[in-house]
Amino acid sequence: MILKPKFHIFVCASSRLTGEQKGMCMTKGTVRIVNEFISEFQEREIEDDVMITTMGCLGICGKGPVVIIYPEGIWYGKVTPDDVEEIVESHIEKGKVVERLLI
Amino acid sequence: MILKPKFHIFVCASSRLTGEQKGMCMTKGTVRIVNEFISEFQEREIEDDVMITTMGCLGICGKGPVVIIYPEGIWYGKVTPDDVEEIVESHIEKGKVVERLLI
Repeated sequence: MILKPKFHIFVCASSRLTGEQKGMCMTKGTVRIVNEFISEFQEREIEDDVMITTMGCLGICGKGPVVIIYPEGIWYGKVTPDDVEEIVESHIEKGKVVERLLI
Repeated sequence: MILKPKFHIFVCASSRLTGEQKGMCMTKGTVRIVNEFISEFQEREIEDDVMITTMGCLGICGKGPVVIIYPEGIWYGKVTPDDVEEIVESHIEKGKVVERLLI
């Protein structure tokens, strides 16, 4: 557990405030996306710089699964587990936004 | 729904990846905290600058309820609904971190 990581990645898990998972992202791969990020962090040994947290429904289900990376405030949409490697390599490691996934 | 708000406030809602609400924050006022933020935004007419989203369990339940504000990456702990007015007035409106709540 790192407080105040260099990058904080939020992945939509479709939760409403009540806890009910009602949105779409969760049905479209959230768990696989999160696990893929964790694998990439471990493989690249960058666990100390990154943190991944799920977030509640943003109300833009048509653009999901949504991934937001802070502190940059970059919003990615329709992210698949296969996109994760590119996000980590390009955005996190090289500081280059993945244009094709931008919302 | 504002994409890329000036301030993005995350409030822990204790969800695990499975959706199960297992942590502590939710039992210590998350829903009231979120509602209080929304009231403050409306009252101060700053809804266009701020966004509030719940987030999954951070694993630091003893410091909960946890509120994180990006892009600054400021982490507040043991936040109560009564603290929300000060966070909005000081941090969001005046750019002054609320030191007493820092984790």
